[in-house]
Amino acid sequence: MLDPSVLIRDDRIQELAEYARNTGQKTLVDEMERLNLRDRAVLFRLLPKDVAIDVFERLDGALQSELVHGLGDEQVGDLFAALETGDRVQLMDELPAKVAKRLLNELPTRERGVTNLVLGYPNGSIGRRMSAKYIVLGPEQTVRQALAHVRARAAEVPTIYSLPVAGPGRRLIGVLSLRDLLKAEETETIGQIMSPDPIHVDAYTDEEDAARLCADHQFNALPVTDLEERIIGIVNIDTALEILEEEETEDAARSGGTEPLRRPYLSTPVVSLVKSRIVWLLVLAVGATLTVQVLESFESTLEKVVALSLFVPLLIGTGGNTGNQTATTVTRALALGDVRTRDVLRVAAREASVGLLMGSVLGVLGFTVVSLIYSVPMGLVIGLTLAAICTLAATVGGVMPLIGKALKVDPAVFANPFISTFVDASGLIVYFLIAKGILGI
Amino acid sequence: MLDPSVLIRDDRIQELAEYARNTGQKTLVDEMERLNLRDRAVLFRLLPKDVAIDVFERLDGALQSELVHGLGDEQVGDLFAALETGDRVQLMDELPAKVAKRLLNELPTRERGVTNLVLGYPNGSIGRRMSAKYIVLGPEQTVRQALAHVRARAAEVPTIYSLPVAGPGRRLIGVLSLRDLLKAEETETIGQIMSPDPIHVDAYTDEEDAARLCADHQFNALPVTDLEERIIGIVNIDTALEILEEEETEDAARSGGTEPLRRPYLSTPVVSLVKSRIVWLLVLAVGATLTVQVLESFESTLEKVVALSLFVPLLIGTGGNTGNQTATTVTRALALGDVRTRDVLRVAAREASVGLLMGSVLGVLGFTVVSLIYSVPMGLVIGLTLAAICTLAATVGGVMPLIGKALKVDPAVFANPFISTFVDASGLIVYFLIAKGILGI
Repeated sequence: MLDPSVLIRDDRIQELAEYARNTGQKTLVDEMERLNLRDRAVLFRLLPKDVAIDVFERLDGALQSELVHGLGDEQVGDLFAALETGDRVQLMDELPAKVAKRLLNELPTRERGVTNLVLGYPNGSIGRRMSAKYIVLGPEQTVRQALAHVRARAAEVPTIYSLPVAGPGRRLIGVLSLRDLLKAEETETIGQIMSPDPIHVDAYTDEEDAARLCADHQFNALPVTDLEERIIGIVNIDTALEILEEEETEDAARSGGTEPLRRPYLSTPVVSLVKSRIVWLLVLAVGATLTVQVLESFESTLEKVVALSLFVPLLIGTGGNTGNQTATTVTRALALGDVRTRDVLRVAAREASVGLLMGSVLGVLGFTVVSLIYSVPMGLVIGLTLAAICTLAATVGGVMPLIGKALKVDPAVFANPFISTFVDASGLIVYFLIAKGILGI
Repeated sequence: MLDPSVLIRDDRIQELAEYARNTGQKTLVDEMERLNLRDRAVLFRLLPKDVAIDVFERLDGALQSELVHGLGDEQVGDLFAALETGDRVQLMDELPAKVAKRLLNELPTRERGVTNLVLGYPNGSIGRRMSAKYIVLGPEQTVRQALAHVRARAAEVPTIYSLPVAGPGRRLIGVLSLRDLLKAEETETIGQIMSPDPIHVDAYTDEEDAARLCADHQFNALPVTDLEERIIGIVNIDTALEILEEEETEDAARSGGTEPLRRPYLSTPVVSLVKSRIVWLLVLAVGATLTVQVLESFESTLEKVVALSLFVPLLIGTGGNTGNQTATTVTRALALGDVRTRDVLRVAAREASVGLLMGSVLGVLGFTVVSLIYSVPMGLVIGLTLAAICTLAATVGGVMPLIGKALKVDPAVFANPFISTFVDASGLIVYFLIAKGILGI
């Protein structure tokens, strides 16, 4: 496989141009993300114009803004005008305000109008990501007229597969798939064949909610209205999937106790990686000082039976694993809509049973092994503690994501690292209480 | 909001029927998944016929098979014939072989033919999930002819938005989007306007690879060919997204150390939950006995300075958190294609720097606090250990997912729990070696 960075290094520009012409968009995006700043600009300038726009739209914001700095004014102007409204607005957020303003002023009037419309909605709302260019049908149009209308405008709008229908005052009254339009008789009217009262969102809806609605219903596009139910844009499924991928990256990061990166991994500086993690790591480390305090309060017990300390990592590790298992399952069930916050008691009851069952299995095993190697009382301590910690960890791990959701905190934040810290500290208390009781110290 | 389980309990069947008519598909699927077996069948029978099929297709396999058992033979036959090929084959895998065979024999001839074709491909291949009903265009057709063809068949195929073009012997030679067909002049030929040599997969391709290809390229559908490049089916984007969601659920589960559930959480019996987790938990617990052995080999050191045991959970917890952070970031970067296995040395170098930087921050903090509360030598031990463990954990956490990928093991499996166990044991060795050196014991 050709490596564009090698071609650039060896000045094989002819071959690079050929590579740029013959490589798929997705591969181009991946390779661009792996190149350094300078090489990225070289490759980008060699892309055919229509490909360049599509590739640009799929790069992370930080890379987009760097590329813009490396291009000439005219090139930037053309690129900026060719972007979809949503992508254009996202880029403006990345650019210095002065540059963004200049580019906006240089846009053709119509493009400036739709861009300003989208800019009027807050960050994080679907209005900010919608496309303000779309085809609208009228209920009195015949199928023949509508089809001619679609064919005439097919080149200039991002999607034609889902068509909103508007009544007086551009009020959204229906929606029609292109497939249904094609299936219908030419003389029928749109009003007869459209689906009335379509599912839609207003422009202030959270972008993730709107994207999930679109994906869940397997829509090609979701109509966006203003607060008076007038159609003002659409979100197509590609945009919806992009939004969901961003959210997923964010959730994955948070559940691992880091902040999401804003650019591809290999082009993220080490210092930014540290920044994305250090705060969480410090918070968790401060939380973990709780375990030091717990152990300190049992220091005399530890001094009498040093062997107790041998099992500390095993016990808290098992608790952490159990908690993580449960939290992972419940967080995923929440994301898929299989569980809701009002199910908290059902989840707690189920997970307590699961934890107790697993804890019993582990407890019996632990008792047997430790009794044989150390002593029966020690075996009893370890076995009982395993059972108790598993039950505790599973219950906490099941309930925490639901509490997170109810408090409107990203459930992923509540997942693995926090549960581990909590289970570590409470598990140690359980351990030493059981040890004191059974060993009589 | 109406709760269907309440309506069923109170025998308000009229209202339930109205609910079934007026509720969106996605909501119906969610509610069905939350009902018990009997209530689910009651609600299902009240669904309008076309909605019933769509809802059925979106239920998990286990629930589908239960529903089939609760319906009459004729109803099952109709439902079975109306399913898309891929969904039908998936259902057959869930049903007892005898029932599956009987249903297959009762299918109309044409449907039986396409079903047998799909059944011929192995589980996990895209051939098993493709739709064998699609529209094929010929290169000599005019746009007008092609459009008429599409309109005539629009009702019976799952997607019309992406149209494969076949030459002699049904060999795939191009693809055309419905949008491009609509944009073209009526007298042009398909051969003139199609995109030649389209991206496609053969039917033996892994379903996840094919689905990702379809989603990454933002295709409406991806053509599937046999090994001789003859077109035999298509995967549409809805199916691709379903496959990716299944894979994601699997990855999420594995990274939390559990096996994925095969049905919605609340309708999964407690025993199945235990089964999905217990093996992993046992494997990890056996792994954790390594920590007991490490501590045992340093037992005399522990007896001399019991205070050392106070910091064990804090130190290994911090190591585990650092490892998780890195593994999460790198696993996600792998999934997004931002990192590849051949980047292993770059990743190791980056993560060693990140770990050392974070470890230094934590180490200085740890040194200061512990020096003030305990003693300077103890502070030195904790500070140095934190720095060493963070570096170690970040490097291991960065490299492990890449090794997993290279060994063709799901990188998620290598993630959090395994790294924690490994870092726990090696971190303890580092801790006690540093302690012995500095405290002179």
